[in-house]
Amino acid sequence: MGLPTVLLLLLAILTPGAAFHVPPAMKALSSLRWSASSTFRRTVAKNYSVHYIQQKVDHFGFSADKTFKQRYLIADAYWKKNGGSILFYTGNEGDITWFCNNTGFMWDVADQLKAMLVFAEHRYYGESLPFGNKSFRDSRHLNFLTSEQALADFAVLIKHLKKTIPGAKNQPVIAIGGSYGGMLAAWFRMKYPHIVVGALAASAPIWHFGNLVPCGVFMEIVTKDFKRGGPNCSETIRSSWDAINRFSRTGAGLRWLSEALDLCTALTNAQDVQHLKAWLSETWINLAMVDYPYECDFLQPLPAWPIKVVCQYLKNPSVSDAQLLQNIFQALNVYYNYSGQASCLNISETTTSNLGTQGWSYQACTEMIMPFCTNGIDDMFEPHAWNLREFSDDCFKQWSVRPRPAWIITMYGGKNISSHTNIIFSNGELDPWSGGGVTKDITDTLVAITIPDGAHHLDLRARNAFDPTTVILARSLEVRHMKQWIRNFYASLRKKH
Amino acid sequence: MGLPTVLLLLLAILTPGAAFHVPPAMKALSSLRWSASSTFRRTVAKNYSVHYIQQKVDHFGFSADKTFKQRYLIADAYWKKNGGSILFYTGNEGDITWFCNNTGFMWDVADQLKAMLVFAEHRYYGESLPFGNKSFRDSRHLNFLTSEQALADFAVLIKHLKKTIPGAKNQPVIAIGGSYGGMLAAWFRMKYPHIVVGALAASAPIWHFGNLVPCGVFMEIVTKDFKRGGPNCSETIRSSWDAINRFSRTGAGLRWLSEALDLCTALTNAQDVQHLKAWLSETWINLAMVDYPYECDFLQPLPAWPIKVVCQYLKNPSVSDAQLLQNIFQALNVYYNYSGQASCLNISETTTSNLGTQGWSYQACTEMIMPFCTNGIDDMFEPHAWNLREFSDDCFKQWSVRPRPAWIITMYGGKNISSHTNIIFSNGELDPWSGGGVTKDITDTLVAITIPDGAHHLDLRARNAFDPTTVILARSLEVRHMKQWIRNFYASLRKKH
Repeated sequence: MGLPTVLLLLLAILTPGAAFHVPPAMKALSSLRWSASSTFRRTVAKNYSVHYIQQKVDHFGFSADKTFKQRYLIADAYWKKNGGSILFYTGNEGDITWFCNNTGFMWDVADQLKAMLVFAEHRYYGESLPFGNKSFRDSRHLNFLTSEQALADFAVLIKHLKKTIPGAKNQPVIAIGGSYGGMLAAWFRMKYPHIVVGALAASAPIWHFGNLVPCGVFMEIVTKDFKRGGPNCSETIRSSWDAINRFSRTGAGLRWLSEALDLCTALTNAQDVQHLKAWLSETWINLAMVDYPYECDFLQPLPAWPIKVVCQYLKNPSVSDAQLLQNIFQALNVYYNYSGQASCLNISETTTSNLGTQGWSYQACTEMIMPFCTNGIDDMFEPHAWNLREFSDDCFKQWSVRPRPAWIITMYGGKNISSHTNIIFSNGELDPWSGGGVTKDITDTLVAITIPDGAHHLDLRARNAFDPTTVILARSLEVRHMKQWIRNFYASLRKKH
Repeated sequence: MGLPTVLLLLLAILTPGAAFHVPPAMKALSSLRWSASSTFRRTVAKNYSVHYIQQKVDHFGFSADKTFKQRYLIADAYWKKNGGSILFYTGNEGDITWFCNNTGFMWDVADQLKAMLVFAEHRYYGESLPFGNKSFRDSRHLNFLTSEQALADFAVLIKHLKKTIPGAKNQPVIAIGGSYGGMLAAWFRMKYPHIVVGALAASAPIWHFGNLVPCGVFMEIVTKDFKRGGPNCSETIRSSWDAINRFSRTGAGLRWLSEALDLCTALTNAQDVQHLKAWLSETWINLAMVDYPYECDFLQPLPAWPIKVVCQYLKNPSVSDAQLLQNIFQALNVYYNYSGQASCLNISETTTSNLGTQGWSYQACTEMIMPFCTNGIDDMFEPHAWNLREFSDDCFKQWSVRPRPAWIITMYGGKNISSHTNIIFSNGELDPWSGGGVTKDITDTLVAITIPDGAHHLDLRARNAFDPTTVILARSLEVRHMKQWIRNFYASLRKKH
């Protein structure tokens, strides 16, 4: 009990120097403490084997025939060769062992689906580095970091597993992923329906591109979460920006701010203040993403329903600037110092930096162009328009690449995806990413499951005694769909023979 | 009348030095003479406008942001903004103007489908050269010649058309192609169903990969065509190989052969003889592909049902070697000298060399690995096994690349394509490529249309007074399906509004 076992994926990347980039915020590391029956799961969770497959660095070109080692994990304790299935985690932007140990849902359902669990690492993350420690050196080395190459890796890997594991050949494979991994799961089913019979895409904001959804939707949901967190909570945060701005006008004000917020490094200029505000915004965003119903470790430990706890300090937007910012400091302490261990607050960190932030930063500058904006009215943030030009220039400065914002929609269909089948899009209504997700059924087999009390892919986490009924229901619906896909697969297999 | 108006695509590439490579034989140039109502069509056929779009050289990588000009043609004489459609020719390995002028079917149905016709040139062919005259210089320059890049070009182009042509935005697009272009049409619908509502894949051997079909099937169909061409015809051709071998044992024999076959360049060694036999094989293959029911110009003019004409000279396999080869010479003259203009036979040509043979040779060495073999029993050729190793070595010698024979199946699904919808696979039973095609319905919306009297995508050619009933029927079925797709598109559009 009490040991960290589940990691949550959620990512936040600061792009320093940019006026306002709400981060492609899809990753961070969290580990949860279990209150119930976690020992068994923990043991099982560790019982996987590690494998490697040689993959082409470039599936879409033949001039360089270089290969690299992609890592993948297999857990087959519950796998049955007769009538079994393969659950395939489409790894996203991080070390695959984290995902493996922390997508408890897959471990929880392995038994009833007689499933082999496979966790495939995404290229350029974890150990799966196409050019070793040179992988991030420059845009030439990063050239093969795309969703298309990642999906091709998955396809080649599954073909390889079916060929080499006796009994796997005639089994249905289901893609599962969360966040960017959820997008990959959905896209994998769309592009390789011959390889996976269906996909569970949890908290996958596949529509957070172009102008498929309003650019303000993300921050509006963050704001809604804080409104829900307590009376005047979002208003207090909204008031904090001007308070900070007023303090920032003088050197004395900056010094006071630095002390009041207990910052590790004192603020000295306007850019530092921009940085501070971006860091604060990210903190609120991250809280919205991990607003889970049970106590958990998220970088620092967090209480159950952390936004509620934070909002206890943010009840009054009308106090003096000094008082308001002291209250903000109390709130920040919930997130950054719940354990009481932090000696100061470091505004260059909001989440762990272990997870592939470099890789994601590159992806966010190339294919994964998600527009964000705020207006300060429908949300609790300072108004910032989405500025593609500026974003593109920042990307060029950082990576020598330019974003292609229309490409993902051209490639994966945007809102026009109704000809596909067998994809579950699950979204928590508390999750800001749900704004870019599929939250209404598209067809009978492209279904949306919404979890009113759920934050970022809560459904993919292991079951917990404090799970709200809505997530329990969501998981059981998901299993029902998966069982149907498996039955259909075997029925059509029998028809063939 | 009598002017060449329609080009047939069919390609044959000799790979000199290789023991036996039945060519990726999908291209050659033919122009047909019309016996009826061709004047009107010819006029219409010429009425297109030429356009260019800047395409990324690499859709799947961001390090080089280079672009090139892709050519495309538009004919909109019959296009209606209200309730119309867009027929999109997925250009294959050749100059797009040839395809445009010679896919008469599209011109013939434009009126009833109120269709805009678009013909998109395949990158690395015609004028659409990513690196100008350096495009074929080496494998680095050729690196972006893949089917995936070509499909991405098509997708980007269609998005561009919908954005820039008033009235095009809310119209259904149907992909149409023949041969390799037919594969592209089918794959385009599979991978980009949000962009095209359906595809007509004519004579598309999408299963001529790996061991999806027996490697001998192609040459067996060629043989069957010659069996059908006349009594003892295929047997005579089968006997010719040994006759050639016996003559080839001596210098005098080689000299006799060279004279008897009226070769432009005399045979001097064993390799020349190999070359001669490969050239002969290709000639028979090409005849099988263009065994059309009406007189036409194919490089040299050809009579109607040319195999029947050829077989009039090949009635007796049991005559002396000399007599037999003199008869073969008569048969060859049907193909190479129907017009009586040829002064000698040139064994380094079987088809025009204008069409992108370099590009196809590269594609056939990378993605498009189609195994061919003969056993001399079920077919009329000398026995040759399919030897991937040898093939790969030849490719490496020629292009410094190695084939990836499993890739196309991983990418496009092989035989496991039943989850897709709205693809018509049409095949002529006389066409040797039908052996690798889809000739049985897979589902209600993945339908096969076979044309008993059809050679290589006869259905895509303009209507002709000598068309067999079966191809007329096939075309009307195709139109019926396309109309259904268009109706469905508009019905679902109305539902949305």
